[in-house]
Amino acid sequence: VFQDFDLAAIYVSDAQYNRNIYFDTSPQAVRLYLLYNHWVLKVLLYFFILVDLSLALFEEPAVVPLPSWVTMLVELLCLLVFTLRLIHYAKVIPRDKFWKDPKNICIIVILLLTLVDMIIYGALKAANCYGVRWSRVLRPLLLVNVTEGRQLRRAFRSIRNALPQIFYVFLLFMFSVLMFSLMALKLLGKRGLTTIEGAPYFTSYLEIVFDLYVLVTTANSPDVMMPAYNASFVFAIFFILYILINTYIFMSVFLAVVYNNYKKYLKEEVRQLVRAKRHKMVRAFAVLQEQKEEGGDPVVSQASWNQVVHLVQPDISNAHRELLWSVCDDKNQGAIGKVAFVQLADLLNIEVITIKSRPHPLNSLCPAFYQSAPSRLLCRMVQHRAFVIVYDLIILVNAVFIGLDEENPMIANSEWVFLALYMLEILLKLYVFEPRAFFSRHSFWNWFDTIIVVSALVATIVNSAMKSSGGYTSRQILDIVFILRVLRLIRVVDSIKRFRTIINTLIRIGPAILTFGQLIIVVYYIFAMVGMELFKNKVKFYEDTSDPAKAYCGNPLLKGTAFAQLNYCKNNFNNVVSSFILLVELTVVNQCSGFATVTHMSARIFFVIFHIMVVIVIINIFVAFVLEAFFVEY
Amino acid sequence: VFQDFDLAAIYVSDAQYNRNIYFDTSPQAVRLYLLYNHWVLKVLLYFFILVDLSLALFEEPAVVPLPSWVTMLVELLCLLVFTLRLIHYAKVIPRDKFWKDPKNICIIVILLLTLVDMIIYGALKAANCYGVRWSRVLRPLLLVNVTEGRQLRRAFRSIRNALPQIFYVFLLFMFSVLMFSLMALKLLGKRGLTTIEGAPYFTSYLEIVFDLYVLVTTANSPDVMMPAYNASFVFAIFFILYILINTYIFMSVFLAVVYNNYKKYLKEEVRQLVRAKRHKMVRAFAVLQEQKEEGGDPVVSQASWNQVVHLVQPDISNAHRELLWSVCDDKNQGAIGKVAFVQLADLLNIEVITIKSRPHPLNSLCPAFYQSAPSRLLCRMVQHRAFVIVYDLIILVNAVFIGLDEENPMIANSEWVFLALYMLEILLKLYVFEPRAFFSRHSFWNWFDTIIVVSALVATIVNSAMKSSGGYTSRQILDIVFILRVLRLIRVVDSIKRFRTIINTLIRIGPAILTFGQLIIVVYYIFAMVGMELFKNKVKFYEDTSDPAKAYCGNPLLKGTAFAQLNYCKNNFNNVVSSFILLVELTVVNQCSGFATVTHMSARIFFVIFHIMVVIVIINIFVAFVLEAFFVEY
Ligand code: NA
Repeated sequence: VFQDFDLAAIYVSDAQYNRNIYFDTSPQAVRLYLLYNHWVLKVLLYFFILVDLSLALFEEPAVVPLPSWVTMLVELLCLLVFTLRLIHYAKVIPRDKFWKDPKNICIIVILLLTLVDMIIYGALKAANCYGVRWSRVLRPLLLVNVTEGRQLRRAFRSIRNALPQIFYVFLLFMFSVLMFSLMALKLLGKRGLTTIEGAPYFTSYLEIVFDLYVLVTTANSPDVMMPAYNASFVFAIFFILYILINTYIFMSVFLAVVYNNYKKYLKEEVRQLVRAKRHKMVRAFAVLQEQKEEGGDPVVSQASWNQVVHLVQPDISNAHRELLWSVCDDKNQGAIGKVAFVQLADLLNIEVITIKSRPHPLNSLCPAFYQSAPSRLLCRMVQHRAFVIVYDLIILVNAVFIGLDEENPMIANSEWVFLALYMLEILLKLYVFEPRAFFSRHSFWNWFDTIIVVSALVATIVNSAMKSSGGYTSRQILDIVFILRVLRLIRVVDSIKRFRTIINTLIRIGPAILTFGQLIIVVYYIFAMVGMELFKNKVKFYEDTSDPAKAYCGNPLLKGTAFAQLNYCKNNFNNVVSSFILLVELTVVNQCSGFATVTHMSARIFFVIFHIMVVIVIINIFVAFVLEAFFVEY
Repeated sequence: VFQDFDLAAIYVSDAQYNRNIYFDTSPQAVRLYLLYNHWVLKVLLYFFILVDLSLALFEEPAVVPLPSWVTMLVELLCLLVFTLRLIHYAKVIPRDKFWKDPKNICIIVILLLTLVDMIIYGALKAANCYGVRWSRVLRPLLLVNVTEGRQLRRAFRSIRNALPQIFYVFLLFMFSVLMFSLMALKLLGKRGLTTIEGAPYFTSYLEIVFDLYVLVTTANSPDVMMPAYNASFVFAIFFILYILINTYIFMSVFLAVVYNNYKKYLKEEVRQLVRAKRHKMVRAFAVLQEQKEEGGDPVVSQASWNQVVHLVQPDISNAHRELLWSVCDDKNQGAIGKVAFVQLADLLNIEVITIKSRPHPLNSLCPAFYQSAPSRLLCRMVQHRAFVIVYDLIILVNAVFIGLDEENPMIANSEWVFLALYMLEILLKLYVFEPRAFFSRHSFWNWFDTIIVVSALVATIVNSAMKSSGGYTSRQILDIVFILRVLRLIRVVDSIKRFRTIINTLIRIGPAILTFGQLIIVVYYIFAMVGMELFKNKVKFYEDTSDPAKAYCGNPLLKGTAFAQLNYCKNNFNNVVSSFILLVELTVVNQCSGFATVTHMSARIFFVIFHIMVVIVIINIFVAFVLEAFFVEY
């Protein structure tokens, strides 16, 4: 029987990490596939995606302007890397599979369009014409379509799945907004009321629709109501009803629909993952199987099994491997059947925490000292509950000291005392607990403490060295010192058990928040690119406070508007950083009246679409996700 | 065997309506109990509660000022009614049960405190001193503690149940706010930044905590960030992190905790209700049971059963009663055991819709005409799908006409055409469908249509009669006409099936929204009473636009503040109506900087407590409730 251990190991490892690539099984393709999965190549790919995305910092409108030939050269390099990665992928999987996979087609289209756009832009630049780099909106789609973007694709699929249901609720919601607007037009339009800026109030239907849509986001509450309310308190009832129905009931219905779809979809995805995993393990079994006795079921011998496990996880300890084998081969037959083999992928994912405590290195080095009475007393003290309480009290006192004025020399010096106390705590713990256990992968708080305290120590030393040498204090280093000092206080929550469960749930949902982060970045990036083309330099921020144009953000249309009066000039689309920050603000509160003033009314469509995409869809999925995570934990 | 049919009927009816009163079983108490449950007395009770609550409209600070002796006389009358009702209740239930029930004690305490307060207030008034009617905050508690407030008490219990868990999350949330505030103080306090009003920015710790707490409600976004963001975009990261953690994650966790508790509590309540219902039916059975054969199980004969059902529901038809009996006595033995008897309460709650269609009255009156070919063609036409589509199109055309200027005589006259078309639709439907079926209790949309169209017709006729007689148009009648016209358009959603399911769910959650309405009124009323004492006349609204004090809401402290500039003067606590409207605004967006300016800093505590109570607790329970309702439906 020919057994291809490499191939089996790849199947097992694919099952373990939920990879879903149907690679060619020819030896050459398998070797290429192993290379394709190498972490260095993956890191490189993400590095170049990051470079490609951050080109927006240097392209017009730029944070740091660079000549366009520089950014275009870098972009060409990125395109080259993506093309090479794609060719590599094409060599790994069968040709027909490659062309049937929409994500490959997507990447090819993105690369071609980018190239076309670069050529057009270069030609226009050479002819001194105005050009738009429209292909920039395609860049974040690379994040979605690379093979490694599985989680992100799943998130987008879950959104696409929820869309039909959201759409019907959205239609009904818009119908309600339109009806209320019509009623507002009829009730309020003819009363000759004026807004605070003196403009006629609620006389144009489209304006009313937009104002009432924004009211759903609560951004213009209570401003939009005030003229009517000042005329008569009866009109307040209209607005209260509106908010009850559209803000509270409809927004809850959106959440319900999104949440329901999310749960259904999640279940279906998990089922598919389990099926795919089983399928791969069955293939691995087919490669490894032997016929032990005539007519009996095929099995995998312990020797083959060991070899595969060794290939999949080279760093596995012998003890661990034998434990896994004894779990699989529970009847001690020296070989396992298909059913027992299939569970290997899950077994490998279970982290075995070594219960057997290792002796402390000091105990091995000089047992006489470590086991002496004072040393043992110290160990008991450190492990005592009172030790935790004392240090919690120290943290609280420290919090008060941080709040006080640090210019006071007494306070400034007290910082050294606290740092010494914290260092002492870490050293004492290292004395008592085995260092490798103390810094094990799951001891989040030990890592947290040590990193924070050591960096605070380093930063404080650097700071006082600079101060004593030149009398000069770096604002940046001081800021870091302050942040570290405050972060240190967080650890007090770990002492209270109720808090710990909540915090642990939050930490556990951390990785999934990263997927949401990518999702948000994809959407924000696209909106930022479009927004920059539509709104760049419409609103300007002046560092120079003496410039008279500062009072109206450099745009005469904004003279006397609330936007300029509230000094919102820096909320603009003049570069990618301020665009991102503005989009975050729009997510929180859809405050966009300023941009509607300086551009055409239709610019409001941009803001409404953004609100629908981000707040109604993505934020609700995020909330659904946090809800589900907490329901599972509690 | 003595069978007390009255007693059994009361047990069954208590089980049917989920009443939970352990009344005395003496004949006199039973008679009193029947009287106690009479709907007239209940309506009277709620009427007097309403009168008591609306006294706030007439007491200082009043919407319509009345002399205090008038309001106090009315209040005394209300107190008398409540006392009589309580005495009635005391006669109905055993004495020890009465004194063990906290809701009775609550009512007695409320009544006594109110009396004491009235005496003190009267004495102070007589002595020309300043008095506060502090007992007014107790009034809404009557709504909770009357026997009929079961649903409301359940809602409060569910809140009380969720409180411990909310409390721990809240502590963690506040810890996070405090940590971020400390960091903000250290990072931003020393940079010499100023707010838009020129005040120092982020220099006082308590101010920062309050500003960042308000940021969680998104009310002061992005204002609170702008000075730091204008200094450097790096600080925006601080605020974005803050909003991510505290607004998005923590608020979702609050929702998760509230929702989880709500579901758990709901299940427990339903279980208890089922248990109590069974218990009462068992008692009814015990009263009615006979021993049919020696040593056999006790049973209830059909005769006794009939008598009880007749007492419980006098208007039940013989056919319906016989149907119910045949369901219970499925083996046709002429008597039923305990198990079959217990289900009676649920059977009575099932509404039996008569499937057998009654013939149309016209068909009975002159069958020759009604069955003639043209008449039958008409019936087929009205029942055809095209009829619905034609009327949907008419509604859409109507919507466009409503949007156009109604001063145009063509448009004004078209209204008569539309009214005629709608009347025609209703008459045609009444011609085709049996009128009693058309106006059955479940035909929500038929009722809706008829009421809206008929009232629109009446209002339009009245309006044009007034116009042609005196050339005078009443604004109020015109408003009603407009509202009715727009409401008519709503019915278009009923034609689309997807919309119908959503709308039906919304209609079904209607009654429960009434309970939430009561809950909100209780909380708002208490906050309104306290708020009026704290803030009355601090901010004034001037109808007279020429008054110079209007520019700063009559309070020099507000000169130049955003509050006065945005013309928020009517957002005040000067009477109970504007207090309620302001509290709604605070629920939507916690915009309270104006009141913090005119009063002491500590007034902010009022707004924070309101936010915690209403937004974090009650609104989340409301959202949880809508979510649950939609999960059950979908
Ligand atoms: Na808001």
